Amino acid sequence: MKAVVLLSGGLDSAVTAAFARSRGFEVYALTLRYGQRHVIEVVAAERLARSLGAVRHAVVDLDLRGITASALTSDIPVPTGRAAADIGRDIPPTYVPARNTVFLALALAWAETLGSFDLFIGANALDYSGYPDCRPEYLEAFERLAYLATKAGIEGAGKFKIHAPFLQTTKAEIVRTGVRLGVDLAATTSCYQPDAQGAACGACDSCLLRRKAFAEAGVADPTRYR
Amino acid sequence: MKAVVLLSGGLDSAVTAAFARSRGFEVYALTLRYGQRHVIEVVAAERLARSLGAVRHAVVDLDLRGITASALTSDIPVPTGRAAADIGRDIPPTYVPARNTVFLALALAWAETLGSFDLFIGANALDYSGYPDCRPEYLEAFERLAYLATKAGIEGAGKFKIHAPFLQTTKAEIVRTGVRLGVDLAATTSCYQPDAQGAACGACDSCLLRRKAFAEAGVADPTRYR
Repeated sequence: MKAVVLLSGGLDSAVTAAFARSRGFEVYALTLRYGQRHVIEVVAAERLARSLGAVRHAVVDLDLRGITASALTSDIPVPTGRAAADIGRDIPPTYVPARNTVFLALALAWAETLGSFDLFIGANALDYSGYPDCRPEYLEAFERLAYLATKAGIEGAGKFKIHAPFLQTTKAEIVRTGVRLGVDLAATTSCYQPDAQGAACGACDSCLLRRKAFAEAGVADPTRYR
Repeated sequence: MKAVVLLSGGLDSAVTAAFARSRGFEVYALTLRYGQRHVIEVVAAERLARSLGAVRHAVVDLDLRGITASALTSDIPVPTGRAAADIGRDIPPTYVPARNTVFLALALAWAETLGSFDLFIGANALDYSGYPDCRPEYLEAFERLAYLATKAGIEGAGKFKIHAPFLQTTKAEIVRTGVRLGVDLAATTSCYQPDAQGAACGACDSCLLRRKAFAEAGVADPTRYR
């Protein structure tokens, strides 16, 4: 069975893709080049798609910079050095308006084209509780929408399922699952503001959460920090 | 009040934009260059955005050709010469998988960035009953999703409204409304396969519906047919 997997190049989506494969799905990996400052993650996604055995990897260009404002897509500074306990409490400036809705809509378009009813997303409601579009009720609403939005839904050929296998999983557990599934964790990138060589800052929310997760999992963090 | 209006360059969306203005909204027009063969509609949208007095017009590039198959975005032939009664009965090959979901997701991203809660779409459930994502229940589901998808929704700053003012309106009535609101109907384009000079084929579903609508409205059709 075919599945469309949103693959950003980050840790969560890479382990999600490996999980989909481990459940017997043929992985169609979808990556968006949306104007993110950490565009190096697209290169990481290409490497991961190959190593994860994706049947196909589509990289879609979609420049969100003209219609959104976010620390990930514009000059707004990325927050650094925050206490771990503060991350996820509020909606940070790295929130990109409606990003997961845009990404899932594109995944749905591809899934319908492929005749697939399974979409995978590496959303996580624990670390990213500040992001509205990482909540279980949001994903359920998208599932309902997908059914109504498509020819496949109307014709009753199947029912779309939005799989978010790590929605309620700690990042440490995601790291351990990645190790168990043989994911090349060194190829994943989490930093919101890596340098031109891909070295991570070690101080943005995403780096802090990643560091903490590897430490808690007892797995050596293969990230190159600058 | 700001509103994001999906403006394709076609008749329905142009009249929808004029309607939004007539209701006092500041129009932020959004057009997608998504790989459609009738890309000339983007030029039409630019002209219409100006003549309709849009505050801003954003044209976003998003190449759907890599992940969708449709008569509008690939080599699949556009059906021509169909009986008017047959149009809208089935889902035609011009259906682009999940297109309205992708477009509304982008409109939502821009609306949230602008602090707007009003999205306008020229969807029509009469002529396009064959398109799943033109049905009232689909639009209602998107409204629910928008609320859950966004920071604005979580924080209770407002409630998103998907306006589809012509959802249940005949195309003839849309033409008449366009005339009443002073829309430059000659600037709108409907044909799915215009030639390089923008002349319409006169035979695709979209041309046939347009011709019929102008005839029924008793308004001279300003379209250049080849």
